[in-house]
Amino acid sequence: VLVRISELARRTQVPVGTIKYYLREGLLPSGELTSATQAQYRQRHVERLELIKVLLGAGLSVSQVRAVLATIDNPPASVHQLLGTAHAALGGPPSAGPAATEQARQLVRRWGWADTEDAPALDQLAAALEAIETAGLTPSEPAMDRYAELMFQVAELDVGSVPVGSPAEAVRYVVAGTVLYEPLLLALRRLAHQQASSRRFGAEATLPIAR
Amino acid sequence: VLVRISELARRTQVPVGTIKYYLREGLLPSGELTSATQAQYRQRHVERLELIKVLLGAGLSVSQVRAVLATIDNPPASVHQLLGTAHAALGGPPSAGPAATEQARQLVRRWGWADTEDAPALDQLAAALEAIETAGLTPSEPAMDRYAELMFQVAELDVGSVPVGSPAEAVRYVVAGTVLYEPLLLALRRLAHQQASSRRFGAEATLPIAR
Repeated sequence: VLVRISELARRTQVPVGTIKYYLREGLLPSGELTSATQAQYRQRHVERLELIKVLLGAGLSVSQVRAVLATIDNPPASVHQLLGTAHAALGGPPSAGPAATEQARQLVRRWGWADTEDAPALDQLAAALEAIETAGLTPSEPAMDRYAELMFQVAELDVGSVPVGSPAEAVRYVVAGTVLYEPLLLALRRLAHQQASSRRFGAEATLPIAR
Repeated sequence: VLVRISELARRTQVPVGTIKYYLREGLLPSGELTSATQAQYRQRHVERLELIKVLLGAGLSVSQVRAVLATIDNPPASVHQLLGTAHAALGGPPSAGPAATEQARQLVRRWGWADTEDAPALDQLAAALEAIETAGLTPSEPAMDRYAELMFQVAELDVGSVPVGSPAEAVRYVVAGTVLYEPLLLALRRLAHQQASSRRFGAEATLPIAR
């Protein structure tokens, strides 16, 4: 079914001006020209627009969305590479110094995560470690190991639900799932903080603060 | 020890222009005027500047940093309230519809997290659920319960290491720790994705993608 831009806007609830912006930015592929000034759009444009909405809504920048869509359009050959490419598209520029990078490398080695030595997320780990160190909040070695173990269990749950039967779905799941589950997990952690602090200190526990 | 702004800049590696910007934005308290045009600064200014650097480096906006610092300067009476206030300062504006909000409320009830019914993070959970639903990536009920359980274990580890003996330290730890551990946990999850996908699919597993 071919539709005009106005109908595309109606179906997706995205204003025409915004659709034109996405076209200019290369997020949405061009429609098929039916005259010099008129283009028509297909179901795949509707689906792409829905995905753009979701990714932007999840807090990605336009250039991150562009990179994620490029991964979807040109998927790498293996699941493993797909994760790497998606993470590279999502990650910011690595900013960690050599000491933190070496520390991150030693940690994944200690955990036996042999397949992560060249992962883009290793830079993210290094940058996170550096910030934590600067703030003087470095966790103990057992605590760090436990964090890794718990996040590994989260990751196993994530990976376990990737639908490997359906190709396009697998890509969408991995890329969108990586981004969209992050706010979910962080919200769960913050809520659990409330609950865990009540259990540990009691809901009315006072802070030993000189006011 | 009182020092001039130039010495403050040297000690903290923050340019004088940036320090003046923080002063104007109310992130850094004013120094003590020693003449009409000269102010002097103390050790607490050095510490505050270090904290501002860390928080901005962790990706917070200037207004979020301002809110976090206000929490530190006027800490609430209980640990529980402190978490709520910190989360409210860190969280974006709630944007979830009533259906997602109700869903979030039902989830925390199912988990027996009685102390989170009014938590600011409940809005964040609702917004995250809404985005995941829009993308058609809603986890199964058992998977959701398992995510909650794992993040509860993460939160117990976090809360267990809050230094309750030292007042100022407890506040700094909770607020900065909430923000700074988020990138750490997300980096660990992404790395664990790589490792878990290798285990599940084999490092060379191909995607069933029609290219």
